[in-house]
Amino acid sequence: MTQKDRLKSQLAFLHEIDAVKNIFRQTAVSGSVRQENDAEHSWHLAMMAMVLSEHAAEPVDTCRVIKMVLVHDLVEIDAGDTFCYDEQAALDKSERETACADRLFALLPGEQGREMRALWEEFEAQQTPDARFASALDRMQPIFQNHYTEGHSWVQHGISRDQVLARNTIVRDAIPAAWERVLEILDNGVAEGWLKAGDKTINHKGQ
Amino acid sequence: MTQKDRLKSQLAFLHEIDAVKNIFRQTAVSGSVRQENDAEHSWHLAMMAMVLSEHAAEPVDTCRVIKMVLVHDLVEIDAGDTFCYDEQAALDKSERETACADRLFALLPGEQGREMRALWEEFEAQQTPDARFASALDRMQPIFQNHYTEGHSWVQHGISRDQVLARNTIVRDAIPAAWERVLEILDNGVAEGWLKAGDKTINHKGQ
Repeated sequence: MTQKDRLKSQLAFLHEIDAVKNIFRQTAVSGSVRQENDAEHSWHLAMMAMVLSEHAAEPVDTCRVIKMVLVHDLVEIDAGDTFCYDEQAALDKSERETACADRLFALLPGEQGREMRALWEEFEAQQTPDARFASALDRMQPIFQNHYTEGHSWVQHGISRDQVLARNTIVRDAIPAAWERVLEILDNGVAEGWLKAGDKTINHKGQ
Repeated sequence: MTQKDRLKSQLAFLHEIDAVKNIFRQTAVSGSVRQENDAEHSWHLAMMAMVLSEHAAEPVDTCRVIKMVLVHDLVEIDAGDTFCYDEQAALDKSERETACADRLFALLPGEQGREMRALWEEFEAQQTPDARFASALDRMQPIFQNHYTEGHSWVQHGISRDQVLARNTIVRDAIPAAWERVLEILDNGVAEGWLKAGDKTINHKGQ
């Protein structure tokens, strides 16, 4: 493959992923009622990785974590954002995302596409310290976003403290220093009426 | 400073920078008429750094470039986005951005704030290969965004091909392989009527 051909493939990929700016999540942006999109969410995780890696329970390679969170949501370009408390949508999430990965990473020159796909697969598998830390950041960020937006997506979907706890044990394990703050935020969420106190069964609409 | 105090400072910083998601640029997002914000722009530059560093004219440290582009627009939280063809606004841009840097990076623990500020200052000074490559990505990205959005900000501000050329010689120098594609895009922009062919004097409103 010539340099010119490589560049052409790479620019096509970089244009294609612009679409991630139009994949909107359930969480909102501080100081605004609008939902945040996957691109700005990924940017925020990368900043968290830069700033918080000293608190990782296991030593991590900050640079790899940054790359991992930058690419972790690209597969939502075709698969869409699956709300984390939507059990019905979770059933075929992996299949939808794998199909997108097959299409998207193939746009890049061979070894570059394989390297980026491997980062995404490592993130999904959560079997390495880098992936566990990256995943904990990905879970923690919406908790903070909810805290700063009066529980925006918690209120909208009637989420309970127990549901958030059950989903976020990886934060406790991978970034133990932050867990105390997470618990404070959840208690505050219950006190403010943004989070339900007890458990509840969630249906496929997350309500 | 205890670990708890460090974490508190870091989380305050990570909340503060959420504001960059509400700093909107002149360029638009593909497939949409909305303007893109600094967070998603920075994410896109980080992806470009990951994918395109083999084309840098001088060897670069991809990881440092990624960090540099992730933080390069944080100072716009207070200073706002200064449209690159607005000569009037450019006069006090540096002063406004330095004031924001003074406030923002001081939120972090000392050495971490200094390290991040140094990255931003290096980006601004463009005196290192990493900074020149990062700056070239920052210049090139809006050219591609304009190409994919029918010259959105070029049309809106009546920009000429000569103005784009004059501002983007760093792309030619730092990523020479991409320059041919940039010239094709500019020629196409003129042919489509999105860009004026000749030079024009721009006033402070960029019109």
